[in-house]
Parts: sequence; C-alpha cells; structure tokens
Amino acid sequence: MNWENIYKLALTWVKEAGERIRSSFDQTLNIQTKSNANDLVTNMDKEIEQFFIGKIRESFPDHKILGEEGFGDELKDLEGIAWMIDPIDGTMNFIHQQRNFAISLGIYENGIGRIGIIYDVVHDELYHAFKGKGAYLNDKVLPALSETNIQESIIALNATWVMKNHRIDHNLLIPLVRDARGTRSYGTAALEMIYVATGRVDAYISMRLSPWDFAGGAVIVEELGGIVTNLRGEKLEFLNKDSLLVAKPGLHQTILKDYLKEGKW
Amino acid sequence: MNWENIYKLALTWVKEAGERIRSSFDQTLNIQTKSNANDLVTNMDKEIEQFFIGKIRESFPDHKILGEEGFGDELKDLEGIAWMIDPIDGTMNFIHQQRNFAISLGIYENGIGRIGIIYDVVHDELYHAFKGKGAYLNDKVLPALSETNIQESIIALNATWVMKNHRIDHNLLIPLVRDARGTRSYGTAALEMIYVATGRVDAYISMRLSPWDFAGGAVIVEELGGIVTNLRGEKLEFLNKDSLLVAKPGLHQTILKDYLKEGKW
Repeated sequence: MNWENIYKLALTWVKEAGERIRSSFDQTLNIQTKSNANDLVTNMDKEIEQFFIGKIRESFPDHKILGEEGFGDELKDLEGIAWMIDPIDGTMNFIHQQRNFAISLGIYENGIGRIGIIYDVVHDELYHAFKGKGAYLNDKVLPALSETNIQESIIALNATWVMKNHRIDHNLLIPLVRDARGTRSYGTAALEMIYVATGRVDAYISMRLSPWDFAGGAVIVEELGGIVTNLRGEKLEFLNKDSLLVAKPGLHQTILKDYLKEGKW
Repeated sequence: MNWENIYKLALTWVKEAGERIRSSFDQTLNIQTKSNANDLVTNMDKEIEQFFIGKIRESFPDHKILGEEGFGDELKDLEGIAWMIDPIDGTMNFIHQQRNFAISLGIYENGIGRIGIIYDVVHDELYHAFKGKGAYLNDKVLPALSETNIQESIIALNATWVMKNHRIDHNLLIPLVRDARGTRSYGTAALEMIYVATGRVDAYISMRLSPWDFAGGAVIVEELGGIVTNLRGEKLEFLNKDSLLVAKPGLHQTILKDYLKEGKW
C-alpha cells in the first residue's frame, strides 16, 4: 500500500473540498432539519461527502468509507482501509457563524489510525498527521504536547455536562470545572481536538460523538503525545458512538483518576 | 468637538496597537500573575494601554481615560469624554492560544456611547461603530439584527454559571440552556459581544465584568439594534463592575422575563 500517495491525495481533496465550501458562502444555504433541531444539515454537507466518495471510489475502489451523511458504507468491522469523513464538523456553527467548523478525515488500517486531517476552512488552517511522521499546521511542524496540571488548564466542555443530564453524573464534572483555570466551548469536536493538539486548551470532554467526529483528530492528537480515550479511559473503537476524553499527557490520567473515578460509574 | 477626527484617530491607533501585538508573538511573553491565577496579565497588556494613553493625552489632553491596567484616571463620573480601554480582552486566551482575544475601546460623552471599536488582532477583523452612522467589519457594513426565539438561539455563557455560584441562582440559567439550541463559551467578553453583533450567537451572558470589558461592544451591538443591559434589565452605568445580558431584540426581553424573572432575585 502506497501510504505516501494516499496522504498526498487526501490532503489535495480536503483542500479542494474546502475551496468548494468557501465559494458556497455567497449562495443561499438550503438548510434541512435532520432528526432534531440541534442536528442541522445543509446541502453543503451532502455535496462535500459525495465529492469525497467519488474521489475515493475512483482511486481506491477497495477502501471502505464511513461518512456522517450516510452516503458511504455500513461498517461491520475495521478490516482493511477505512476513510472516516465528517464533511462539515460543526454544522450549527457553519450555519450560524460561517466559521468554527472544519472538514475532518481519518484514514484507518485494520482499526489503527494512519492519517488524520482537519481543515479549518475559513482560516485556511490545514492540520494533518501521518502516524509516526509528525503533525503539521499547513507546512509547520507542531511541537509535542507537554504535561500540565488541572490548576493551569483550560478545558473545553459544554455547559450541558455540568447540568443534570442522562449521559453522566454531572457531580463528577463540577469539581473539574471548579479546579481548572477556565472552560471554553466551541461547538465542533474536530476543532476542539485541534485545540488540544495545539495546546490552546489542555483537555476536551464530550459525552456522545460518532467515529467521524474524532477519527481525524485522534491521529493528530496522538501523534503529538496527547491521550485519546472515552470517558472510562477505554480505547475508542471507531465503530460506534462513544464519549471522548482528549488531554495532554499527565492531565488525562489526573482527570480520569481524580474526577471520573476511573470510569466506575 | 470634532467626532469624525476622534473616530479616525481611534481607528488608526487601534490598528497600530494590533500591529504591535502581532509582532510580539515571536518574543517570549513575560507573564505576571495579578490577584489570582485566572487573571493573568502580560507585559503586552501594560504596553498597549500605555501606548493608547500616550496618544490620547497628546491629542486630547482634556479627555478622561479608564483602562484595565490602571494607568489611566480614576473616574468618579462620566462627564465629558471618556475613553474606556481594554488593551487585551481575553488575556488567558492571549497567553494559551495566541488567538480569541481583542483590543476593546469605547468612547463615551457624558455617559453616552459614541464610538465602539473591537479589534480581533489575529484575524485582522476590525469591528467599529459610530453612534447613528452604522457598524462595520473592516469596510463592510454590518446588517441590523433581527428578532429570534430561544429555541433557535445559540447562547454564549460559561459553564460556571450553570453550577452553584455566588453571583446568581444557577437554577435560573439551567432552563435557558436546556431550551436554547446550544451554548458556546469563548472567554472574551469583547468578542462574545461581537459574536452577538454579527449574529454568530444570539445572546451573551456574563456575571461580572468591568466597564472596559463592555464599553466598546455596547456601542456596536446597540448600533445594530441589539439590547445591552445588566442581568436585571437595567442600563449599564460604565463606572462599576456589573453583570451583562446582550441579546438580539425580542430575545433579550424573553430571557429577562421568562428566565431571569425580570431581575427579581
């Protein structure tokens, strides 16, 4: 398998998809509502996913594709090579803000992340990593993450998770928010993982995400020494929805042990 | 008073200050801790405030200056013309992220906001308004804000305020977060007000801010038809710390009446 070629093509396609999105801003967006009002989808999500599928099928007909909009394959396992695509991560931001969204792509071989690409389209910031070969912002090498403690940390997490909710006992998270230096919430898992990768925040917590939300970010964060698991500290499986705890080394263990009680809930 | 001239000079100085900040990114920041670990201050905050004070004193020696870093005047009233300056709003972001911070400037005459300028330095986005003459992003006119409802709203507010805290009964805010489409938190009052001004979020709530945090944003938001009060629905006084509720028309009244119980707490 020529991984260099896959990496090069994937980067080219992501940039091209971004260009399509940027040029769409002048058009009126045809917004449809998916299963609920918080889960908006635009014609652009669909068009971009189909663009990727066309390119992948043409060059790599034996690769599997898992896409948010459902135009790809239904994956029963992760054998072989699988492309996991979120054409627009942060659709609500895309619609409301025309910023703070990203294209997210992870390419996995037998369940192991090989390539991660996240493109902040509006700011033309292309974050990418090839497992074992470093992570980059555009052409600039990103430095490895260093350890930190809770008191000096900024944690990305949504206000919803410190209110009573049916995903987690909010009393586990409240002390974490109290002890941290601050919290932020940007509404896009892909960019929130990039915020951890670049040290802009120190950890990111979310309760329920799909593989295409974190597949690309996981490769980039891990390449920089960050830790990516679910909130119980387990390895992500990339076949089902899961919770997510992404953090700098050291901090990940502290959050898991001192606040999340090592998943014993 | 030649307000056109004040406006023109203020814009020039803000841009020049932004250029100084951008060029500082290569230098090591000398970070000092103010009263607590969450309230970081850098040499850059101080330098930029002193830059403004020098310019204002030279051109307008009879104007008052209120600045976050305390190099300006102690204001007992708002008679005459007062410049309210936050040299770097979002200092924690400035240090951790080198983005998501802004220069904020409001110029008031006898307590009435005349000029508001907020500069997102990293993205070179200069937001500005001259009361009665429209609000702009760089040279582009910003459209007036339209009414919206809670269900379609994104609200900027920090997770801290839906946890037990000593500023507000968090049980007032929890239903608001449940009913809204989503929440965000960016950690900079100036840019969060700009997010309301540009419709990227629909409301912004904060519990305790200083006049320099909201003086610039208030002029811009109000010029676009948005409503700016404290959380009790009262007019801001710009002499003391206060809470803040900034929202689109209609939505402001709904939040105040249906959730904040018209300040009866």
